[in-house]
Amino acid sequence: MSLKLYYASGACSFVPHAALELAGAAFEPAPIKLHRGEQRSPEYLAINPRGQVPVLVDGDEVITQITAIALHLDAKFPQAHLLPASGVARTRALQVLAWMNNTLHPTFTHVFMPNKFTSDEAAQKAVKAHAVESYRGLLQEIEALAAKASPWLGGEHPGVLDAYALTLLRWGGFAGIDPQTLPQTWALVQRFAALPAVAKVIERERLELNVYKP
Amino acid sequence: MSLKLYYASGACSFVPHAALELAGAAFEPAPIKLHRGEQRSPEYLAINPRGQVPVLVDGDEVITQITAIALHLDAKFPQAHLLPASGVARTRALQVLAWMNNTLHPTFTHVFMPNKFTSDEAAQKAVKAHAVESYRGLLQEIEALAAKASPWLGGEHPGVLDAYALTLLRWGGFAGIDPQTLPQTWALVQRFAALPAVAKVIERERLELNVYKP
Ligand SMILES: N[C@@H](CCC(=O)N[C@@H](CS)C(=O)NCC(=O)O)C(=O)O
Ligand SMILES: N[C@@H](CCC(=O)N[C@@H](CS)C(=O)NCC(=O)O)C(=O)O
Repeated sequence: MSLKLYYASGACSFVPHAALELAGAAFEPAPIKLHRGEQRSPEYLAINPRGQVPVLVDGDEVITQITAIALHLDAKFPQAHLLPASGVARTRALQVLAWMNNTLHPTFTHVFMPNKFTSDEAAQKAVKAHAVESYRGLLQEIEALAAKASPWLGGEHPGVLDAYALTLLRWGGFAGIDPQTLPQTWALVQRFAALPAVAKVIERERLELNVYKP
Repeated sequence: MSLKLYYASGACSFVPHAALELAGAAFEPAPIKLHRGEQRSPEYLAINPRGQVPVLVDGDEVITQITAIALHLDAKFPQAHLLPASGVARTRALQVLAWMNNTLHPTFTHVFMPNKFTSDEAAQKAVKAHAVESYRGLLQEIEALAAKASPWLGGEHPGVLDAYALTLLRWGGFAGIDPQTLPQTWALVQRFAALPAVAKVIERERLELNVYKP
């Protein structure tokens, strides 16, 4: 069964990208250049009509949505412990995953692409400024979780939550938030980035971890 | 092990509320009046510092996030088939669930509470108008899914996706979208609402299914 991941450098697709490498899965990485609008090409829209990454193709199945891809990979590669296997630990992790995906991720979209929410330019500015402040508060909530990580956000094994935390903290840099003001998260993210499987993804995506410009 | 659900009439908490009744679970329903700001009372903030419903309390565990609650209940009551049990069907259902939760749900929040995204009143108006149009398009995507329901959105058994579809279509009425313009979804939602377990929830929440005013 062949696996293929459509991803964009630095985008949220980092989450399944890291998950695949952590699982030691054989897969074809298919880069999509968002700044060149490749996500809106007829070829790509034929794969994902919503024009977004990530897309995981597993055999004949085209799977979108980070949460669904993460749960799919978790079921496919249970030995990778991408999420805690069961019980309270699993429910806690799914709660954090869902919240990152439905709250932090869309809040950053308001910072990065306010034009998705209104065509009025003054309103875009207002929305963006408000979202930066909301995002700052949300990263503080991540910081509290990172302070309790033992040693990873999902417990014993590095996984999906750590990959999402890396992405969200990195995005903070673009929102003018210095990652070093979130020392627990910054330490966790650096530890995660240093894992050989994750380092491979960072190299393939050519990511700088700290994009904050003072 | 005692179960308690904090919910608000007509809110997204309808999803776990219906799931609990579909599973035939014994639970204590704890209503929170959002229009009276009860979600911001010190008592409620002690339970959920984010001041939102739903919250499921399972024994000592306080669980937030619809997706996490749905997966928790699905694991706890497998015989209820709140989601397809495995394989492609499960991945597909999780994809729809994640997308409803991270895309439709927040889009409606822009319609209903644009003040969450900017304090500027003109910008709020612009954001709201834009979100109504986005929401209309998103409900058309639900309509395409409803057209393929066989007979429920998750397949053989009524479950979490149907409950979310009911909620999202109902909210459409508040956004000025006539549910009858989405005939497949409207038929599915009415069929779902007529199930005895779901009818009980609708009665407890005192819901009108069609809130659209021409
Ligand atoms: N709800 C989707 C969101 C995916 C998403 O936000 N993708 C962004 C990159 S982070 C994208 O492809 N944006 C390109 C565009 O919107 O043009 C998920 O959870 O997977
Ligand atoms: N991300 C949460 C969202 C929950 C949510 O949006 N709750 C709304 C009702 S639909 C709420 O409690 N709003 C009250 C408020 O924000 O004051 C989830 O998926 O459970």
